[in-house]
Amino acid sequence: MSGDRLPEGLGEFGRIRDFFAPLAGPGGLGLLDDAALVDCTPGHRLVVTVDAMVEGVHYLADDPPDLVARKLLRVNLSDLAAMGARPLHYLLTTALPRTLGDDWVARFAAGLAEDQQHFGVDLLGGDSVATSGPAVLSLTAFGEVAAGAEIRRGGALAGDRIWVSGTIGDAFLGLAVRRGDYPNLASADRDMLVARFQLPEPRTALGPRLAGIAHAMCDVSDGLVADLGHIRDASRVGATVALDALPLSPAARRLVAGDPDLGLRLATGGDDYELLFSAPPEASAAIERLAAELGVPVTAIGIIEAGAEVRLVDPDGRSIPIVATGYRHF
Amino acid sequence: MSGDRLPEGLGEFGRIRDFFAPLAGPGGLGLLDDAALVDCTPGHRLVVTVDAMVEGVHYLADDPPDLVARKLLRVNLSDLAAMGARPLHYLLTTALPRTLGDDWVARFAAGLAEDQQHFGVDLLGGDSVATSGPAVLSLTAFGEVAAGAEIRRGGALAGDRIWVSGTIGDAFLGLAVRRGDYPNLASADRDMLVARFQLPEPRTALGPRLAGIAHAMCDVSDGLVADLGHIRDASRVGATVALDALPLSPAARRLVAGDPDLGLRLATGGDDYELLFSAPPEASAAIERLAAELGVPVTAIGIIEAGAEVRLVDPDGRSIPIVATGYRHF
Repeated sequence: MSGDRLPEGLGEFGRIRDFFAPLAGPGGLGLLDDAALVDCTPGHRLVVTVDAMVEGVHYLADDPPDLVARKLLRVNLSDLAAMGARPLHYLLTTALPRTLGDDWVARFAAGLAEDQQHFGVDLLGGDSVATSGPAVLSLTAFGEVAAGAEIRRGGALAGDRIWVSGTIGDAFLGLAVRRGDYPNLASADRDMLVARFQLPEPRTALGPRLAGIAHAMCDVSDGLVADLGHIRDASRVGATVALDALPLSPAARRLVAGDPDLGLRLATGGDDYELLFSAPPEASAAIERLAAELGVPVTAIGIIEAGAEVRLVDPDGRSIPIVATGYRHF
Repeated sequence: MSGDRLPEGLGEFGRIRDFFAPLAGPGGLGLLDDAALVDCTPGHRLVVTVDAMVEGVHYLADDPPDLVARKLLRVNLSDLAAMGARPLHYLLTTALPRTLGDDWVARFAAGLAEDQQHFGVDLLGGDSVATSGPAVLSLTAFGEVAAGAEIRRGGALAGDRIWVSGTIGDAFLGLAVRRGDYPNLASADRDMLVARFQLPEPRTALGPRLAGIAHAMCDVSDGLVADLGHIRDASRVGATVALDALPLSPAARRLVAGDPDLGLRLATGGDDYELLFSAPPEASAAIERLAAELGVPVTAIGIIEAGAEVRLVDPDGRSIPIVATGYRHF
């Protein structure tokens, strides 16, 4: 692990020693070396992904630092889950403004510590640098999957059912609440929606269990319609989704009841970090049993078809025009 | 690979498609999936490292984008070489201001393409986001090493000779030249020093060949004295280096001749990306043969001792006070 010096406080080397070295696993070599070591399980492949978050773009400057850290880790674990991989390790890069003090970094590291324990992962190393702009945080996550068991975006077949885990649109609404929208919403609903924006729940248990069941999978980060577009592009198929079939939380359902146009925006909003997958119709019973066993709700929302179009349809089967998809940031 | 949308030009998805997808190796899955796959060679361990560069901190805003990209890759390959690892792949994260156009990104990608071919590595994926601040670039490099052949910082033993590859201080001087210092320097010297700052030469051939020879190794990124301090900390030894023994380029030698105090600053300046290693005295002949075979100069500069101090000494063996070490950025 390497770091720049800061003129005040602990400095980068002090922050690494005090806050990050305690998070290191055996492969991190105490964060004392130029690089880290990763052992590979025979018969397995390593799965790697990186996602960055920018202050003011992917999170708000006054979001609690522990939640920022946990979201940064979780969005990457969601990518691993979407490939059917089990999470193992991560590397962390922080570019922080000099105005962010040691306390912020301590709380950020405490969030990582909490989620490391929850998800069974450890820190391999990283880099910390200073920036005159907003904080830029980048995390590389490492997982593993039995060779051949990885679930790609490109395997969807016409006739597959399309499924999604959890509920859709809560994070989009949570961000709106954080920005001052829906001032009259009940506080329990507000808290739930904001929590879904600040702390996604990556489906790390469900993803690997869908190996051999799902034909194609990705996570919902850009928005359900846009991410279904990624499966379409990689699989060279079309897809039709019933807007009314999308699983909504009770809070989202209440808001949609007062604003019917909102339903479409939830389908394009993003930041859900749910799993979106296709599977043959005969797998439906196995999927429902698995969902019940893991306590993760899943919902069938549409079908894969020949063609090259992602369509949202109303209860009468009419296409609903989609204006913009996947533009998730503020 | 994932990306934010931009309102103009190709947008992030277009940039990924046009500039970065052509750089992807087989494990990158065409940059179409949530994550990438890495196969591990049996009997080997994966070596991973990440280094970030910030515009205005680690490079200058008007540095050529292809050189910025190549430096970003090379500083990471230097970390792999310092562990004795052979480079394989990389992940790339860019946080770019919206004012940086497609042309800048195209030239940045062209630099990566050139160095990919030179070093035999390929792109696995990445993330691209927008920032309102200066560009922040982060690269995760993957290499491999035969299990047990990795060279750590912690293996130095009292009695080892200390060696360094190449020359020291050129990048420090090259940055000074870029900032307007040494206006009367001959243009060939200026060009050489600036090139050493903008385009380091990671010792990817030498590093892996030092397995079984070097007891401890790191690369010189923070400055020779600071990096020797990292070996000291990890190995729990002391070290004495003769300042006059440091290998200097002819250009650096000319500048030191006119300013004797400069020699010490070159020993603490950083950004050299040379290999600094310790080895038992009986390995000296093998090291010199290897250096001749590879065409990489190496120089013995000091010895590892019992104790906990890194000392620079003058020709009479007197300690030279070291004021600040490892503060490498501007």
